[in-house]
Amino acid sequence: MRWVETTITVRFAECDPMGVVHHASYFVWFEIGRLALAREARVDVAAMAREQVFMPVIHCECQFREPARFDDEILLRTALLPPKAARLEFRYQVLRRHGHVCLARGRTVHAVSVPGKGMLIRLPVDMERKIEEFLAG
Amino acid sequence: MRWVETTITVRFAECDPMGVVHHASYFVWFEIGRLALAREARVDVAAMAREQVFMPVIHCECQFREPARFDDEILLRTALLPPKAARLEFRYQVLRRHGHVCLARGRTVHAVSVPGKGMLIRLPVDMERKIEEFLAG
Amino acid sequence: MRWVETTITVRFAECDPMGVVHHASYFVWFEIGRLALAREARVDVAAMAREQVFMPVIHCECQFREPARFDDEILLRTALLPPKAARLEFRYQVLRRHGHVCLARGRTVHAVSVPGKGMLIRLPVDMERKIEEFLAG
Amino acid sequence: MRWVETTITVRFAECDPMGVVHHASYFVWFEIGRLALAREARVDVAAMAREQVFMPVIHCECQFREPARFDDEILLRTALLPPKAARLEFRYQVLRRHGHVCLARGRTVHAVSVPGKGMLIRLPVDMERKIEEFLAG
Repeated sequence: MRWVETTITVRFAECDPMGVVHHASYFVWFEIGRLALAREARVDVAAMAREQVFMPVIHCECQFREPARFDDEILLRTALLPPKAARLEFRYQVLRRHGHVCLARGRTVHAVSVPGKGMLIRLPVDMERKIEEFLAG
Repeated sequence: MRWVETTITVRFAECDPMGVVHHASYFVWFEIGRLALAREARVDVAAMAREQVFMPVIHCECQFREPARFDDEILLRTALLPPKAARLEFRYQVLRRHGHVCLARGRTVHAVSVPGKGMLIRLPVDMERKIEEFLAG
Repeated sequence: MRWVETTITVRFAECDPMGVVHHASYFVWFEIGRLALAREARVDVAAMAREQVFMPVIHCECQFREPARFDDEILLRTALLPPKAARLEFRYQVLRRHGHVCLARGRTVHAVSVPGKGMLIRLPVDMERKIEEFLAG
Repeated sequence: MRWVETTITVRFAECDPMGVVHHASYFVWFEIGRLALAREARVDVAAMAREQVFMPVIHCECQFREPARFDDEILLRTALLPPKAARLEFRYQVLRRHGHVCLARGRTVHAVSVPGKGMLIRLPVDMERKIEEFLAG
């Protein structure tokens, strides 16, 4: 798999009274990872959003091994699986940069929705081509 | 002033490593207070949102006296000042229900934006009338 | 299974540019459901938190069928499975109150951590007894 | 004033159904700005947090001129005023990097709390010295 790496510094507001990053925040990070991957694949997610083309999450999950803490440097690794029909599946690895300790692993599955058409049953041709090129790269 | 009261139970995810509600969360609560006030004034904010009519915040502030903690029952009191032109100004009091201790006081000022027209310079007639009736009530 | 029901009104700040509740917010709601269930089981989670006894999430997942929207009344149903060792597993159903449409289903698995001891390998006796009583009730 | 600059990329989850960054998110960004400033002043906020030394917000405010949108590159400028007693006051400017448009201006005032002592009435000597050096620099 082709992993795209992003660095995230843990925000104070992302941590909870346990002093660690709240588990829901990881899914916000995964979104950052998808955006970074899309950028490498030359898919312009922000432009898509302006045209109301979205990739709603239909499944998401995460396993947590060790907590991330305030001000930790996080290395987020994101990969995209070869798409089946109009489903996009991403995988994530969350590591503490210091020591490269694996903190969590995640997975999200997405549909693609277009205004007026709802959920697509095939990926848009342009997106499909860019994904193929990215996965081949 | 006519205060509208709402009850909020502090969520774990709203608290930070200090073990208290993060200050940014109060502005999310104030939004709940505005919605409750709008409901009493028979202004349907959700229907407005569906039609892309919004009340963007142009100023917000909050003073904090005592912290709110996880699972606290919060009494949020919200008031609306008589509008000037197309500016709406709300006031907020945040109390711990137990003992009615005042925890914080806030203020937000809003414009009204309508799709295609941008920021209004006069309130929509219907909204103005409902606000007058609410303030008179 | 014994389901505990909670009602949640969708907050504006919980919604994203798609106009629907952001998927990460469901895990914040699940926390509200766990708290409601704990209350019915007479487990005082807030008192535990004050003593730094926490139930960190080690796995979480959610399937999304239909979006929840701003101001929707949500019915959250939460259940606890019979615990194995020191693992607690919860199940969640998210319904739109209007029409009882199922919007999402979730699952979280938790450890129990105690200050100075880290993750427990057995549930505290008192908690185990309360859970048994709850599950039997 | 000595401004410390930080770059932030707008996250999807920070945006609301208006398609713009939710106003509460700016206070989360300001926290990032304070951390960057503290780092330049060689004050280790993360180490302080581990020792339960915190800087709770006692006042915060923000004026919004133009919205920030998903994937915008934000330039956050943060300054610290010369401290009076144990009050720290920060100022913030939020600019869109592209075109250097000013989007918002903010202000926060903080106390300093130490475990067992509560709110300090004088800054810790070490912190005071580092701040003086920073402001002189």
